[in-house]
Amino acid sequence: MAEQFLSERNLKFLLYDVFKVEELLQYPRYAEHSREVFDMILDMAMKLGKNLFKPCLSEMDKIQPEYINGTVKVNPAVKTIMKECGEGGWIAAQAPYELGGQQLPHVIGLIPLFVFGAANYSGSVYPMLTMGAAHLIESFGAKEQIDYYLPSMFAGLWQGTMALTEPQAGSSLADIATTAEPTDKGYYNIRGQKLFISAGDHDGVENVIHLALGRIKDAPAGVKGISLFIVPKYRADDKGQLVFNDVNCAGIYHKLGYRGAPITQLSFGENDDCRGYLIGEPGKGLFAMFQMMNEARIEVGLGAAAIASAAYYASLEYTRERPQGRPIAAKDPAAPQIPIIEHADIKRMLLFQRAVVEGSLSLLMQCSVYSDMELVCEGEEKERYNLLLELLTPVAKSYPSEMGILSVSQGLQCLGGYGYCDEFPLEQFYRDVRIHPIHEGTTGIQGMDLLGRKVTMHKGKAFTCFLEEVHKTIAAAEKDSELAPLAAELTQALEALQKVTARLTGIAVKGAQDLFLADATLYLEAFSVITVAWQWLKQGLVLRDAVKKGLNSNEVNFYEGKLYALRYFFGYELPKIEGLFKRLMNADGLTTSMKKEYFQDNA
Amino acid sequence: MAEQFLSERNLKFLLYDVFKVEELLQYPRYAEHSREVFDMILDMAMKLGKNLFKPCLSEMDKIQPEYINGTVKVNPAVKTIMKECGEGGWIAAQAPYELGGQQLPHVIGLIPLFVFGAANYSGSVYPMLTMGAAHLIESFGAKEQIDYYLPSMFAGLWQGTMALTEPQAGSSLADIATTAEPTDKGYYNIRGQKLFISAGDHDGVENVIHLALGRIKDAPAGVKGISLFIVPKYRADDKGQLVFNDVNCAGIYHKLGYRGAPITQLSFGENDDCRGYLIGEPGKGLFAMFQMMNEARIEVGLGAAAIASAAYYASLEYTRERPQGRPIAAKDPAAPQIPIIEHADIKRMLLFQRAVVEGSLSLLMQCSVYSDMELVCEGEEKERYNLLLELLTPVAKSYPSEMGILSVSQGLQCLGGYGYCDEFPLEQFYRDVRIHPIHEGTTGIQGMDLLGRKVTMHKGKAFTCFLEEVHKTIAAAEKDSELAPLAAELTQALEALQKVTARLTGIAVKGAQDLFLADATLYLEAFSVITVAWQWLKQGLVLRDAVKKGLNSNEVNFYEGKLYALRYFFGYELPKIEGLFKRLMNADGLTTSMKKEYFQDNA
Repeated sequence: MAEQFLSERNLKFLLYDVFKVEELLQYPRYAEHSREVFDMILDMAMKLGKNLFKPCLSEMDKIQPEYINGTVKVNPAVKTIMKECGEGGWIAAQAPYELGGQQLPHVIGLIPLFVFGAANYSGSVYPMLTMGAAHLIESFGAKEQIDYYLPSMFAGLWQGTMALTEPQAGSSLADIATTAEPTDKGYYNIRGQKLFISAGDHDGVENVIHLALGRIKDAPAGVKGISLFIVPKYRADDKGQLVFNDVNCAGIYHKLGYRGAPITQLSFGENDDCRGYLIGEPGKGLFAMFQMMNEARIEVGLGAAAIASAAYYASLEYTRERPQGRPIAAKDPAAPQIPIIEHADIKRMLLFQRAVVEGSLSLLMQCSVYSDMELVCEGEEKERYNLLLELLTPVAKSYPSEMGILSVSQGLQCLGGYGYCDEFPLEQFYRDVRIHPIHEGTTGIQGMDLLGRKVTMHKGKAFTCFLEEVHKTIAAAEKDSELAPLAAELTQALEALQKVTARLTGIAVKGAQDLFLADATLYLEAFSVITVAWQWLKQGLVLRDAVKKGLNSNEVNFYEGKLYALRYFFGYELPKIEGLFKRLMNADGLTTSMKKEYFQDNA
Repeated sequence: MAEQFLSERNLKFLLYDVFKVEELLQYPRYAEHSREVFDMILDMAMKLGKNLFKPCLSEMDKIQPEYINGTVKVNPAVKTIMKECGEGGWIAAQAPYELGGQQLPHVIGLIPLFVFGAANYSGSVYPMLTMGAAHLIESFGAKEQIDYYLPSMFAGLWQGTMALTEPQAGSSLADIATTAEPTDKGYYNIRGQKLFISAGDHDGVENVIHLALGRIKDAPAGVKGISLFIVPKYRADDKGQLVFNDVNCAGIYHKLGYRGAPITQLSFGENDDCRGYLIGEPGKGLFAMFQMMNEARIEVGLGAAAIASAAYYASLEYTRERPQGRPIAAKDPAAPQIPIIEHADIKRMLLFQRAVVEGSLSLLMQCSVYSDMELVCEGEEKERYNLLLELLTPVAKSYPSEMGILSVSQGLQCLGGYGYCDEFPLEQFYRDVRIHPIHEGTTGIQGMDLLGRKVTMHKGKAFTCFLEEVHKTIAAAEKDSELAPLAAELTQALEALQKVTARLTGIAVKGAQDLFLADATLYLEAFSVITVAWQWLKQGLVLRDAVKKGLNSNEVNFYEGKLYALRYFFGYELPKIEGLFKRLMNADGLTTSMKKEYFQDNA
């Protein structure tokens, strides 16, 4: 199996050269860190990735979680993963010092998640979910909740989850029906069913802490009636002993991939003894949950990019080693075969993967930097970073997820028949990565979020900020002879995007909401391609600077390779917006006018 | 599980209304058939699809073939499938009367393959391969070979295979190394290894007949030294008794999908006792094999379209039944949820699937009609049909395969989290369909075949014939007010295709073969989109005629639905050529100039 699953060189290039994370050190929140600390974190994460996560990648896939007598048995590696991630401080990495965390910037906190995800995505989900749930308690919980739950979660002893989905409420969160009946003892009696809950029950931890959405009795219908609760599998009794909290695991799903993590069906309060503890204000549950949800959306994008990274390096290794065919112009059939990496079509498939992986990663880091800057800035600046993050979250969630599927598929294709067989890891990556356009809001939902909410909110302010950011990069790129033509392409793309956006919002203004959003998924796709083109051009500025200053001989491959990936993106990927914009400008209401009966063969 | 896996209504529409297969009855070869016979064949195929193939779809996936003591144990259903397909005359369906066949036109012969493939692709492969191998023996074998092998193959007692791939010879067939040493007894001693041989060994039949490529001792290197042999697992001894022919199964592959059929590793002549029987002339093996290969390429496209069809109907059923969300303009959160088929984005995903499935099927039938016409015509006409078939074979192989993956993926997406779980069939279809861009020549190989051979052969004559065919449809469509704008779009697309083709062949003429073919895969993609747009417009002519004549009320849904799928294709799919042509016109040699070292992080 391939050894390499990511490029440390590229991570450092993005962190230090493109996003200049050392500039974060000037802010008091991050002042105690240093580049040495960041480097060490990458080193340690790589060790854990190689020695802990990667070795059980295939085994966790092949020997799936088992549902036995109401509980879920997982691979013993899970316990070790949670323990090591707890003891090593990985779960608390981004938490503040006073809670025992390391107060890392998000852009650095992203590194171990990417490393672990590339080494073993299923394995990485356990600590990642715990981190997100702990952060939610930290942000909205009362002090005693923080004091009680966080230490065990940070230590990797207790699992955290997001418990949103119900049988009738998947994409439609407004329909959540789990009930919470107030008592006079400070807790609520919870009753309801939750589906598709990742790591919702397993024997790798001592307890599972669900962050669950529900409705307080007599709350209004719709999203305004939704509140957020901590629902632990085991609660503390009067003496502080853990007792069962009537949180029942009703089963697990057998899935295409992502098999190392159990996805559970839960039933709260079957015996009327499930206690939930309100977090934040009643009726503000969805607002609070969206903090975790937005983080999770970035993490889903990151997970997809991580799997695509592992697939890229596995296919790269194969294409270097597999001899097949000869140069097209070669005439002698007795000449030795060449490694397939020398064929243009294989290079195209590799460049595609690299462009997707490194473009996605750059976008995800960009979002994390905005998130960090939002934390340390005030006033207008803070709002600006918040708007940019809000706008780009659906893009950062869906581009890596959708393109990750295609990227892994091209990786698999590079291996031909072997790619289809389980003696190589591609087929697992292909199965694993397919979850990402589904969980934490499908691509369709992300499209409606981007066009229906984010682009139009605050009178289009977020969109304006985005255009300004891209134009900054364009302005710098115009000064470089090699980048100038690409800058011109991106300028044209932005103009087309503005035109399409005006056309669609014009439809919305006239009140045709359904027509406005009918092709939101395609709008998201085009928007994403342009966003990632921008990220590539941004990398290009740094690359060209380095080339102009002169490269050491051992740096040529990295820099030239990245420049080729940049050119690939502009040459092969950016043109895809042409067809999308043609369609979007059309907006003829094809899908809104079609009757559902037309899918039938007869009356 | 969904009941419906294809549309009989659509099959009849294509057969009788679009391709007017009854016109074939005028030729002596098909004169004994009738529409009633064709209808009966569809009926019987549907019965077999529903009652024999479909019931074991999931079981054949879950309980995979096992390699035990040198042989392969398959699901007991395989034996029944082969027996029923033998006794029912399905394997011999297209063979001539004098060999016990039914002498069906190919376009009718395609029907049971599509039905069986949609019901259970893995199951359909056993009889299909046997049919192809038998046809090869029929075409190139000596009379005694035909007399000896065909009856048992047609009866479903003996399995046929294609044995091409070797460890060093996958895409590069020129490198085949299996050796055939002549003896003075009329047979050759065969030695060599064959990989990835579908149904290469199993206990559902009494014997396995390999059509294997090899090299006669001292044959020249390259394709000119390749000959074709019949290599049976059991050969007849002097008394006609079957004895082991030293054809050893060394193992099977565990695969992503397509698990119901064992893909085997074979070893010929481990004990120097493997006899092969030459078919056709020495050194002409690849030429002969290409008959089976070309048929198999059409069948691969058909298999992909069939799986995509089953996935489409499974997702369609789900979207009708799953309530989630409300109309976009609806304000009342307490109003009941609507079935998701009413959401525009879901309709878009369904229309995409329908457009791919029915567009692919139309293209595949078009190829079969050309194949039938080639058989019954003479002279110029015969050549014309041959050229069209040759040109469109890589398109018919790869478009359904590549788009089938995306189509099934959209079907899976329609089911959200459930699509990812094995309680619904989508996840199996998603795994099954991924093989098609790989087997029988990868998409990269098809692209080089189309651009590097087919488009340029006979000074572009095949390409010219193709343009003429499309223009015929355009000319007819221009006369209809609703189709005229689509005809104009297709005219523009053809002009762009000619321009790109001229640009690329211009590069070839200058001798830069590698640059000429660097983006052949993209050329294939654009060519395919235009070809399928043509097929949809061709269907549109019939649809509009029917609408203008007036539809019965029970026909409205079918005709209107198809017209929407046609408009979908032109509105959403055809615009994809814009980006592809932009890239193809560029032809900057990005992938030919990139050094393979640039994929490394350092020197």
